Amino acid sequence: METDRKYPHKAKAIKPATRITTEPALNCSCTDSRMVGFPVAVVLPAGGSGERMGLSTPKQFCDFLDRPLISFTIEAFERINWIQNIIVVVAKECIDLMKTIIHKYSHKRITLVVGGQTRHRSIFNGLKVFTDSQVYDSKLTKPEVVIIHDAVRPFVEEDLLLKIATAAKDHGAAGATRPLVSTVIATTSEGCLDSSLERAKYRASEMPQAFLFDTIYQAYQQCSDYDFEYGTECLQLVLQYCGSKAKLIEGPPTLWKVTFKRDLFAAESIIKESLSQKACVITGVQQDAVQLAHCLEKTLTQIMVEVISTPVGEEVSCIQNISAKEYRNIIYVIVNDTDLQEIKQLVESIGNTSLPILYPVVVIMVHLNKSESMPFSNNMDDLGAIRLLAKEAKQKNILVYGLLVNYPKDTEKWNDAVANVCLIAGTLIKDRNAVLAGQLFVA
Amino acid sequence: METDRKYPHKAKAIKPATRITTEPALNCSCTDSRMVGFPVAVVLPAGGSGERMGLSTPKQFCDFLDRPLISFTIEAFERINWIQNIIVVVAKECIDLMKTIIHKYSHKRITLVVGGQTRHRSIFNGLKVFTDSQVYDSKLTKPEVVIIHDAVRPFVEEDLLLKIATAAKDHGAAGATRPLVSTVIATTSEGCLDSSLERAKYRASEMPQAFLFDTIYQAYQQCSDYDFEYGTECLQLVLQYCGSKAKLIEGPPTLWKVTFKRDLFAAESIIKESLSQKACVITGVQQDAVQLAHCLEKTLTQIMVEVISTPVGEEVSCIQNISAKEYRNIIYVIVNDTDLQEIKQLVESIGNTSLPILYPVVVIMVHLNKSESMPFSNNMDDLGAIRLLAKEAKQKNILVYGLLVNYPKDTEKWNDAVANVCLIAGTLIKDRNAVLAGQLFVA
Repeated sequence: METDRKYPHKAKAIKPATRITTEPALNCSCTDSRMVGFPVAVVLPAGGSGERMGLSTPKQFCDFLDRPLISFTIEAFERINWIQNIIVVVAKECIDLMKTIIHKYSHKRITLVVGGQTRHRSIFNGLKVFTDSQVYDSKLTKPEVVIIHDAVRPFVEEDLLLKIATAAKDHGAAGATRPLVSTVIATTSEGCLDSSLERAKYRASEMPQAFLFDTIYQAYQQCSDYDFEYGTECLQLVLQYCGSKAKLIEGPPTLWKVTFKRDLFAAESIIKESLSQKACVITGVQQDAVQLAHCLEKTLTQIMVEVISTPVGEEVSCIQNISAKEYRNIIYVIVNDTDLQEIKQLVESIGNTSLPILYPVVVIMVHLNKSESMPFSNNMDDLGAIRLLAKEAKQKNILVYGLLVNYPKDTEKWNDAVANVCLIAGTLIKDRNAVLAGQLFVA
Repeated sequence: METDRKYPHKAKAIKPATRITTEPALNCSCTDSRMVGFPVAVVLPAGGSGERMGLSTPKQFCDFLDRPLISFTIEAFERINWIQNIIVVVAKECIDLMKTIIHKYSHKRITLVVGGQTRHRSIFNGLKVFTDSQVYDSKLTKPEVVIIHDAVRPFVEEDLLLKIATAAKDHGAAGATRPLVSTVIATTSEGCLDSSLERAKYRASEMPQAFLFDTIYQAYQQCSDYDFEYGTECLQLVLQYCGSKAKLIEGPPTLWKVTFKRDLFAAESIIKESLSQKACVITGVQQDAVQLAHCLEKTLTQIMVEVISTPVGEEVSCIQNISAKEYRNIIYVIVNDTDLQEIKQLVESIGNTSLPILYPVVVIMVHLNKSESMPFSNNMDDLGAIRLLAKEAKQKNILVYGLLVNYPKDTEKWNDAVANVCLIAGTLIKDRNAVLAGQLFVA
C-alpha cells in the first residue's frame, strides 16, 4: 500500500480494505458538480458498535419505520446531486447487511468499504478508494473536497453541506458546531470540581466536516498510531499536521447525533412528523364525496391537503401526480360504493412507483355511508376484503385503513362527523401504525 | 429584605418574591427525613422561556399525555418521602397556571415562589422561603441540604438524589455530571478552530446538584450583580465564595435536559414506554376467557402480565388489586356477553381511584365471539354503547377500546387470533392514543 511505503513506521495496523462498488460511480453527473464548481464526495464511517444505547444492534442499523438509520443518512446525501460519490465504511461483519440495505432501498452512487479498528482508520480507509488504485481497482475520480459525516446523524440539510464544502475549499477544512448545552467542567483527581469553562468561549464540534481531499489525506498519512487510536477530531489533525485552521459554521439543532435510546425515539418522531406534512384527497365527481373532500381540506389544518377529483374509473390516472409530488398520505373518499376494485388498483399502482421504497405510504379509504341500513351488516364481506387488501398492501409498505362515516342529516352532526374523520385520519397519518392497517374505524 | 440590608450594594435587582403555599409544609414527615438523617428540600427553578424550542409555550409547561412536563418533574420528587419541601419557582405570569397544575394533579408539599429575572435570582428567591420570615411569613423549617434541579429534567431517580444529597452533606456541594458527547473546541476571533479539549479531562455539568443550605445561601448573599446576571453554575459560585469543592457524581443518560423539540418527542416516548411495562388481564371464570387470558399472558412477551380471574359480578372487587399495583393497562376479557354493565362499573371504579390522575389508564375490552352469526350485526347497539362509554371515560383520563376476536375452530387459526390480539393490544397500550378510544378493533 502506498501509505505504508511512504511512512512504513506509521499506520501499520491498517488492514487493506475491500471496495464493493454497488453502482458505477461514473454515473455521477458532471453538470451537477459544476453547480458547486468543484467535485465533492462524502465518507460515512459507520463502524460504531452503539454500546452507549445498551442495544445489541449497532445504532446505525436500528430500524425506523422498518428501515435502518443509516439508510436515512445515505438518503440525505443521495438526494443532493452535486455529491458524486458516497463512501460508506462499515465493519467487515456488517458488509453483507449493508449490501442488503443498499439493494433493498435502491441506494445509488455508493461505494462500500471495510472499516478499520477505530473511527480514524475507517475514515482513512474510505479516503483511500480515491488514491489506492492497486488495492481498490478504483475507477472513482478523486474529489477536490471530501465531506465526512456520521452515519447516525440522518437530518443533515443541503444548505449546510454546501456551506461546509465551500468553506473547506477556501480554508482547507471546515466543521459544523453547536452551542454547548451544558456547562463544561474540569475535575480534580479526587472527582471534585476544579473549574468550569466559560461557555461562550467554547463550542461543541459536530458533523458534517469537510476538507480539501489532499489536506485530510496528508494529515492521515502523517498520523501517529496514537492519533489513529485515540484522536477524535479530524479538524485537530489537519491543524496539527497541515496547519489548516478549520472554519467553524454553526449548524441547526437537528444535526445532533443519535447516541442514546431516547435519540432513537426522537429520530422516529421527527421522521414521522416530516412525513405527515401533506396529503392528497382523491374523490370521484360525486357531489357528496367532493364536498367531504373539501371539508377535510379545510379542517385538516395541520396538514397541507390537495383535493384531486377524478371521474370514476380514472382514479389511477392521478398516480403520476401523487408520485411527482411525493404524496405519501392518500385519503380516498367513496360514497356508498362497496366495490373495492378501484382501491385495489390504486394500491397496486402506488406499489409500482418508488414512493413506498423509502417510507410507508398511508392510504385511508373513507367510506361515506348514505344508506339507511346498518353499514356493517351490509359490508361484512368488505370488512374481510379490506383486511385482506391491507395485508397484501403491507407487503409493499403501503398501510391501508378503512374509515366509515355515516351521513348525518343535520349540519351540526355533519360537522362533528367531518371533525372526527379529520381527527382519526390525522392520527393514522401521524402514527403510521402498521399493526392497525386493515382495521375499519368509525368516525 | 434581610439580604439587602446585609449587602445593600449587591443583589438590588431581586424583587420581593411571593410565596403561595398550596399545602401546609408541616405535613412533611419527620420519620421520613430520619431515613436520610438530615432534612432535605428541593428548589425547582422553572422560569425559563423555552426559546430554544421555537415554541410559544415555555417547555416546562408543554404537555405529555395531556400533562405538563413540570408535573412529571414534581412527581419525581413527590414520590420520595425524605424530601420535605418542594419549592417551585415560576415567573409571575405563570403563577395561576402553576396553581391550576398543582391542584389538577394533586401535588403535595409544594411551595410556589415568584421567580427573578435570571436563573440565579430565581433560585435565591426559592431559598429565601426558609429564611425570610418577614417577607414570606414562613412556616417552613430550614433544611440542612437543599437539592437544586431543573423543571425540565423529569427522569431523576431516587438513588441518584440520595447520593447527591449525602455527598453535599459531606462536601458542602455535589453535582451530577455526564461524559461529553461531542468534542469541545475553542474558537479564534475569526470563527476558526483554535484548539480542541481533551475529552477525558472534562465533563458536562448536569442537574441535580445539592448544597448545604447555609453554604449556597451564603454564596448567593455574596454574589455580584454580574454573577446573578451571567453566572450559570451554582457549583462554581460556592467554590468561589465559600471555598467548597463540589463532589461530582456521574449520573445516568436519562438525566438529560429537555431543550429542543426532539427532546419533547423523546420524553413522551420514554414516558409511554415506562407506562407499558405491565398489564393485568381480568376474566370471569368461564373456561374460554381464562384460556385466552393465559394465552395473552404467554404471548405478550414485552409486557409483564398478571391474570386476575374473578367470578361474574365481582370484577369490581379486583380494583383494590389494580390500584395497589398501579396497573394502568387493563385487558378485560368477555365471552359472547353483550352486556356492558360490568365494564361500565369497572371504568367507574377506576375513575374513583387515583390511577388516572397522573397518567391515562388503558382499558381494552376483548370480546371473544363464539357465536356463528356475524358479530357486528348482533352488536351494532353495543358499538354505539362502547363509543358512548369511551367518550365518558375519556373525561376521566381512561381510554377504552373494543377488540373483537372471533373464536376459530382450529388451533392454527386460534394461535393467529391470539397473536393478533396481542399485537393490537400491545400497540394500543404503547400508543395510548386518545383519538382512537371508542373504536372496535378486530383481531
